[in-house]
Amino acid sequence: MQQQISVITLAVSDLERSRRFYTDGFGWTPVFENEEIVFYQMNGFVLGTWLKARLEDDMGRGLHSPGAFTLAHNVSSEDQAKVVMDRLAGAGGRILLEPAAPPHGGIRGYIADPDDHTWEIAFNPAWPIDENGHVTFGAS
Amino acid sequence: MQQQISVITLAVSDLERSRRFYTDGFGWTPVFENEEIVFYQMNGFVLGTWLKARLEDDMGRGLHSPGAFTLAHNVSSEDQAKVVMDRLAGAGGRILLEPAAPPHGGIRGYIADPDDHTWEIAFNPAWPIDENGHVTFGAS
Repeated sequence: MQQQISVITLAVSDLERSRRFYTDGFGWTPVFENEEIVFYQMNGFVLGTWLKARLEDDMGRGLHSPGAFTLAHNVSSEDQAKVVMDRLAGAGGRILLEPAAPPHGGIRGYIADPDDHTWEIAFNPAWPIDENGHVTFGAS
Repeated sequence: MQQQISVITLAVSDLERSRRFYTDGFGWTPVFENEEIVFYQMNGFVLGTWLKARLEDDMGRGLHSPGAFTLAHNVSSEDQAKVVMDRLAGAGGRILLEPAAPPHGGIRGYIADPDDHTWEIAFNPAWPIDENGHVTFGAS
């Protein structure tokens, strides 16, 4: 497996208020945005700010602030998502959601690390990952 | 400012248990470790797993699980840390800790985004950042 984190997703309650912090505060430019999510192409991975209710729906888990977020590790195939989830479960992880196809495409499951930090294990063919593990946003 | 995240730091209660998840589960190799922290060089940034009590000390803030973590944005000078903190505060951020020198070196402050996600704004001359914003672990 690549030593790679593909996405940091932060849950937000007010998308415009959050956008102002990241665009006016940090001076960052979104690579994609719609009424529920803003994506920023970062240094080798993607930052997403997603409405909390939607992230909760996707995870099947209520989230509390501070700390409503998930990390993602993208893999190279649907089968690989299941392989990685099982390997993580064998190393002390707790499966929250078995890999399945969400409405927005691809395949993703969720697993908690031993300290209850959430990882999404996803197959998303629209987002290229290069040989150095650098992940680029792509419209699907 | 670079569109760049330098570090993801996850609070952990048992370093060895966490290490097993990341090394045996994901198959990742630490770039540095001691009795309180394990660092992994990732795709353009650094992942740290740090004993929760030490991260809480550093932040001056108690943390709850799930969600005990901080993101970091490293800047190019001590002065710049203050400039960035003030700019973020003006864009809806809430300062948790003004930039100051911790025992482990460098300069860092903490600020919460509008959804209470914590950002460390740090000057760490030991960790190079290239023109693409890719951050490399360095021993200080």
